[in-house]
Amino acid sequence: MAGFIEPIGRLINQLSKLPGVGAKTAQRYAYKIIEMSDLEAEEFAQAILRVKREVKYCKVCGNFSETDTCPICQNRSSDIICVVKEPKDVVAIEKSGRFDGVYHVLHGTINPMEGIGPNDIAIKELLIRLNSDNVKEVLIATNPDVEGEATAMYIAKMVKPLGIKVTRLAHGIAVGTDLEYADIGSLTRAILDRREM
Amino acid sequence: MAGFIEPIGRLINQLSKLPGVGAKTAQRYAYKIIEMSDLEAEEFAQAILRVKREVKYCKVCGNFSETDTCPICQNRSSDIICVVKEPKDVVAIEKSGRFDGVYHVLHGTINPMEGIGPNDIAIKELLIRLNSDNVKEVLIATNPDVEGEATAMYIAKMVKPLGIKVTRLAHGIAVGTDLEYADIGSLTRAILDRREM
Repeated sequence: MAGFIEPIGRLINQLSKLPGVGAKTAQRYAYKIIEMSDLEAEEFAQAILRVKREVKYCKVCGNFSETDTCPICQNRSSDIICVVKEPKDVVAIEKSGRFDGVYHVLHGTINPMEGIGPNDIAIKELLIRLNSDNVKEVLIATNPDVEGEATAMYIAKMVKPLGIKVTRLAHGIAVGTDLEYADIGSLTRAILDRREM
Repeated sequence: MAGFIEPIGRLINQLSKLPGVGAKTAQRYAYKIIEMSDLEAEEFAQAILRVKREVKYCKVCGNFSETDTCPICQNRSSDIICVVKEPKDVVAIEKSGRFDGVYHVLHGTINPMEGIGPNDIAIKELLIRLNSDNVKEVLIATNPDVEGEATAMYIAKMVKPLGIKVTRLAHGIAVGTDLEYADIGSLTRAILDRREM
């Protein structure tokens, strides 16, 4: 980084790797870190090192875990598996407090444009679970975008023949959004997926 | 952080300490770090530790430096000292490439509301330099806000009696800004500070 002494330039470069962080923001973050006490900076650096050292993937569901099997898989017995794209989606659904089943993290969605096919994400692992566990329902919670829909359709096609119910998270107008402010995508989906009262 | 396993929650907490970073952004940054290779994460953490270990303040001007005296103080001999609030202001002026004097970093500005008086910033150190070095001009480059102006006035009052010329960075309409888009503060300043042609 021009104009900065080497250790500051290096830190700015590292901070620029964070998503959506440009040179100016990285610079602002770097100054904040320089102003931290030695102890604070040490804790910050250790948090980065420890997350790499301690975060693994659950052997059963693929979610982030400190142990071989994640706490959800260890503690819950359920016949519903919720299929999500990424570990952060598990956090989002858990926050709702309205789902007490288990999860399966795909670690991606089918995306032919980027060369990601069904074998590149954890669909095989899902099918193995369905064959061995006593699962009655697969709730697909991939995003309502092209890749998420394609992935949901593919999984439904594979799972239905096993005699397992396949459901999809409802998409539509966000609760709390006035009709006039709803985006076209959500409104279109709300009309297509209208339900009988 | 609710819903996150401990090492991830801890990292999100640390990232939330960066300026302007809320929970959602910290979460996004944390996921990025989790996805980094071990080597990348190690380099990131090391950049934080090294910036704390290697960045000191120049004994002469107070700028960031890896050595006791910063490269600017080591390599430049000048009779103009540019007075700035913070080390980052040195970087900004250096980028212009139009100043080849030396600097003096105040590490703050006078701010009675926050209890920061003239003795809490490096004004005493500036006066000592002026008494010993052969300085002909002090160019004050504090920001054109209330604190920056008060600090500039105070320094001018202390320095003028020493027979040293005191100048202030020009403020006005930013170059490239059309008159109609100039903010009121800049426009007011441009009128007050109008110069004869």
